[in-house]
Amino acid sequence: MVRWEPGARERLQAAALELFATRGYEQTTAAEIAQSVGLTERTFFRHFSDKREVLFYGQEQFLQAFIDGVNAAPPDASPLEVIASALDTAGSFFPDERRSYSRMRQSVIDQNPALREREVHKLAGLATTVAEALHGRGIGEPAATLAAQSGATVFGIAFAQWIREGESRSLPDIATDVLNELHNLTGTATGSRGLRA
Amino acid sequence: MVRWEPGARERLQAAALELFATRGYEQTTAAEIAQSVGLTERTFFRHFSDKREVLFYGQEQFLQAFIDGVNAAPPDASPLEVIASALDTAGSFFPDERRSYSRMRQSVIDQNPALREREVHKLAGLATTVAEALHGRGIGEPAATLAAQSGATVFGIAFAQWIREGESRSLPDIATDVLNELHNLTGTATGSRGLRA
Repeated sequence: MVRWEPGARERLQAAALELFATRGYEQTTAAEIAQSVGLTERTFFRHFSDKREVLFYGQEQFLQAFIDGVNAAPPDASPLEVIASALDTAGSFFPDERRSYSRMRQSVIDQNPALREREVHKLAGLATTVAEALHGRGIGEPAATLAAQSGATVFGIAFAQWIREGESRSLPDIATDVLNELHNLTGTATGSRGLRA
Repeated sequence: MVRWEPGARERLQAAALELFATRGYEQTTAAEIAQSVGLTERTFFRHFSDKREVLFYGQEQFLQAFIDGVNAAPPDASPLEVIASALDTAGSFFPDERRSYSRMRQSVIDQNPALREREVHKLAGLATTVAEALHGRGIGEPAATLAAQSGATVFGIAFAQWIREGESRSLPDIATDVLNELHNLTGTATGSRGLRA
């Protein structure tokens, strides 16, 4: 019979991150993570397929938060208004209590090229999923892909700012500022000068 | 003594792509690629570190084309005008003669998850390099990263369109259209309605 450990997943996640940060990701095994919180390696593998998955657990919920935001936008919203709504919902997925965990996680990822590659891939997958959701709202190409990719870009920049030491604004607030910056970047300088000589 | 084979690199590239497309990427070895054009495996490895590199050879020149375009923009150009210049130079790196090679290469990459991941990573690296070049022009954050990422997004969308069957426009022309679409997306709907309720 399989015994269920209440809160085991969360304890394993916290222990893994601590060990990755102090001892190094490569130098930490699944067995050591489990042992450090008094669980067995078997329990570890009931929750995660490998130690990498500890860092990427919750990705479906993260994607779903974006899609929920897409669906929450009014029917007549422009593509970027839909993205603004998605950023708001996705941003709320990261409350301030999670900031130090996210910061620590990022520093582990930044130190490992394979994890960085996986993280980049995750944002690319996000853009694809959001583009499909925009198609579902009748938004065509290339507008849907442009808007979805811009959303992923804005999220990535806002997230990096959110976990910076000393930053106190919420993630949704930062995302709004970055999205406004995108509007400034693309909205102004064009009209008079044209894009291509 | 090492014998230099004139045109060996190009012959190996063409042969590799042909074999990847007909026989499958996984099923093709470096030795087979070399043999198919009468060269030795040793010659293959003088040109490429592994069979994957055949598909990603020339990446430095591609990045350099972007940077050349950044540097060619007038000093008072806005961030997105700099990106327009970079897209123009990078687009010229893919003349129409290269379209069928690029199309075939893409279909090989699309069929292999590891190659797709590498390709995504390449575009992410492009954005980082271009953002640094924008910093060098005195453009701050988040404008530099936003503009650079938008440039990579526009390039990616334009490139996918360029290799579509039946497409006859040049890559720089398509890139200009997609960049204009980005302007439409971000420039219009905002002002009156605001981004966030």
